[in-house]
Amino acid sequence: MAYPATSIHVLAVAGSLRRDSYNRQLLNAAAQMAPPQMILKVHDTIADIPMFDEDLEATGERGLGGVARLREAIAAADAILIATPEYNQSLPGVLKNTIDWLSRSGAAGPAFAGKPVAITGATVGPWGTRLAQAQLRHALTAVGALTMPTPQLFIADAPRSFDVRQGTLDGSMELRLSNFLLAFEKWIRRLHPAVRTPDQPEAGPR
Amino acid sequence: MAYPATSIHVLAVAGSLRRDSYNRQLLNAAAQMAPPQMILKVHDTIADIPMFDEDLEATGERGLGGVARLREAIAAADAILIATPEYNQSLPGVLKNTIDWLSRSGAAGPAFAGKPVAITGATVGPWGTRLAQAQLRHALTAVGALTMPTPQLFIADAPRSFDVRQGTLDGSMELRLSNFLLAFEKWIRRLHPAVRTPDQPEAGPR
Repeated sequence: MAYPATSIHVLAVAGSLRRDSYNRQLLNAAAQMAPPQMILKVHDTIADIPMFDEDLEATGERGLGGVARLREAIAAADAILIATPEYNQSLPGVLKNTIDWLSRSGAAGPAFAGKPVAITGATVGPWGTRLAQAQLRHALTAVGALTMPTPQLFIADAPRSFDVRQGTLDGSMELRLSNFLLAFEKWIRRLHPAVRTPDQPEAGPR
Repeated sequence: MAYPATSIHVLAVAGSLRRDSYNRQLLNAAAQMAPPQMILKVHDTIADIPMFDEDLEATGERGLGGVARLREAIAAADAILIATPEYNQSLPGVLKNTIDWLSRSGAAGPAFAGKPVAITGATVGPWGTRLAQAQLRHALTAVGALTMPTPQLFIADAPRSFDVRQGTLDGSMELRLSNFLLAFEKWIRRLHPAVRTPDQPEAGPR
């Protein structure tokens, strides 16, 4: 790849289709405040991913352009950041459907296997997407992702943390997100030999 | 309604889009062997339900015909039977997305609130959709459904229980399904005054 070995390319995916969703805003803010060596790109949308259907998968690629596009973007990235809303005390069907597609063997193999992933989520409600994130973590484990265990970033009462008109975060939220991204950078470097800095030992049994 | 007060109309929904899915076959078998006073109709498909998107919901009903159709079918039924596959150790995005749509207030209100529901699931794998059913039960609780707690019907190793060519179940599977449907009939009558038989007392605090 063309970027220096110590740079990290992170693909960020919002689990909601709503254009002005808080989770998309959160990822846009993350792209602005990523650590110096993290290049964070927000995937435009998962709206072009159809409902998972084995018959559709078996008969051809019609309508599957969105799946292939996301699969390629994930393959090209060093790590993935996912921001999920919570629907009905659980993971949105839209986001789970995307994972269901990506878990299948495409040309590049299952998308998440061995890939460092961080998850977060924002909601207007009081519970911070805790249950949705738990289910997302569970599904990501099933598809072989290496999900950062801690810190966890639950964002409740989103309108208090986001200035929707200006697209900015309040100070406390900004600090939490910044620390989360720094921890994610460490998690990625620990797992990912190609972007490991010289002073970091390899992870593994002692 | 035109049917006798003691009849029960059950709408059965398969959580997979695959035409020959084991879960659809299971529901077709259930329709054949339903108890005498249970009229069980299998919903043809959830393939025409789009990805949940608040923007789409806000701007109109284009593409939402499948949502309205299923919402009306649920409103017209006394109870719902759902058969789910399991994808990535969890509830398929396709089925969760359907619940996410139906949880919104349509013309007839949230579809599942106060509705008796039974869940089951079949898989070719060894674990019988146990995790998918747990997540389905969790989501149904969030949307106000009255989900039958027991018996639970987990169907592992589906090809051994189904004769795909003939569309029949093996004897042991047939007995399990039959007992499950009898229990569901009791659950519905207990919760649903309009179809309560004269000898059944009302449910409620003592």
